[in-house]
Amino acid sequence: MSLDGFVAGPNQSVENPLGVGGMRLHEWVVPLTAWRKTHGMAGGEVNESSAVVEESVANIGATIMGRNMFGGHPGPWDERNPWNGWWGDNPPFHHPVFVLTHHLRQPLMLNGGTSFTFVTDGIRAALEQARGAAAGKDISLAGGAQVCAQYLKAGLVDEMEINLAPTLLGSGERLFDGVGDDLHGLKLARTVAAPNVVHLKFARG
Amino acid sequence: MSLDGFVAGPNQSVENPLGVGGMRLHEWVVPLTAWRKTHGMAGGEVNESSAVVEESVANIGATIMGRNMFGGHPGPWDERNPWNGWWGDNPPFHHPVFVLTHHLRQPLMLNGGTSFTFVTDGIRAALEQARGAAAGKDISLAGGAQVCAQYLKAGLVDEMEINLAPTLLGSGERLFDGVGDDLHGLKLARTVAAPNVVHLKFARG
Repeated sequence: MSLDGFVAGPNQSVENPLGVGGMRLHEWVVPLTAWRKTHGMAGGEVNESSAVVEESVANIGATIMGRNMFGGHPGPWDERNPWNGWWGDNPPFHHPVFVLTHHLRQPLMLNGGTSFTFVTDGIRAALEQARGAAAGKDISLAGGAQVCAQYLKAGLVDEMEINLAPTLLGSGERLFDGVGDDLHGLKLARTVAAPNVVHLKFARG
Repeated sequence: MSLDGFVAGPNQSVENPLGVGGMRLHEWVVPLTAWRKTHGMAGGEVNESSAVVEESVANIGATIMGRNMFGGHPGPWDERNPWNGWWGDNPPFHHPVFVLTHHLRQPLMLNGGTSFTFVTDGIRAALEQARGAAAGKDISLAGGAQVCAQYLKAGLVDEMEINLAPTLLGSGERLFDGVGDDLHGLKLARTVAAPNVVHLKFARG
């Protein structure tokens, strides 16, 4: 999230899913060994952010995301030529992913253990399916902003890691739009200062 | 500032200048010895925030603020019964304060070394007057949000301390409204984690 509260820049599109300037929110993570590893790349840097990234991917059994984060395609998908999102043939999740959408679709089974299951009956149904798939492990809420806001507002978030980039975007998509004035029991639990980012972990007090 | 970017809650008024919920942004500072001292009170607590507060008031020779921060009164002021703001007879500044307003008024000289001078010809004129009064010391930009945004946008801010309260206000006055996507050379220079607040100091790189 930017210092002014945006998690994506303006004018998001299939060509530029992060929006104008949105890449500036991720500059801290791309050089890290911990991030490169989940994307099948060797090498990289180690710094104060490394343990935060490692923690964020440890013990995750399922992921939930909105359809924009899956692939930006509004659907309905054409069965003869389906759009499989922008995660490629071997997405970096390596576990079941549940995509909130209004358009029914058969699950996608991809390489490396990632599947995409499309859920059309809301955030609680998606959470229930993810719980089943996770088999006791944690569930990651990957985004985008609207999906995060829905889960926050429903009080269904147990932990929240804000990776605060010390920059302004000026416009775009706000993480907390419509959430109101209530973090539903989440309290600041840990702060890590690192190059180009401050990590703020919230948890139940 | 709240996690969602507000420096005051909604429905600000003379009775509630911080707006609904706005006091939650200041809960970290009120118990501190360093804050109580500037307000003429003994006792209090010492924690990780203390040095930050002490730094913020050290070596200040003049302060600039908007008219809402002076006293919320829209003016013009009635000369026979002037409104002297809500800072009382002995304001906590103890140096010259320059108030940006559209209404000319004679300077106010109060106890303890605080004066209020009313500037009607814009932010650069106020800065010039404050520079003269500060005689080489630093100038504090006290707020509110609109005045800070104007100085930021003009590239006239050399240091910025964001005291980030880990809470949501949901609505109110945003610090960075209208600033755009440019911090004009300010970079994150120091992070301090403290009870109920994270201090983010920005300075020229």
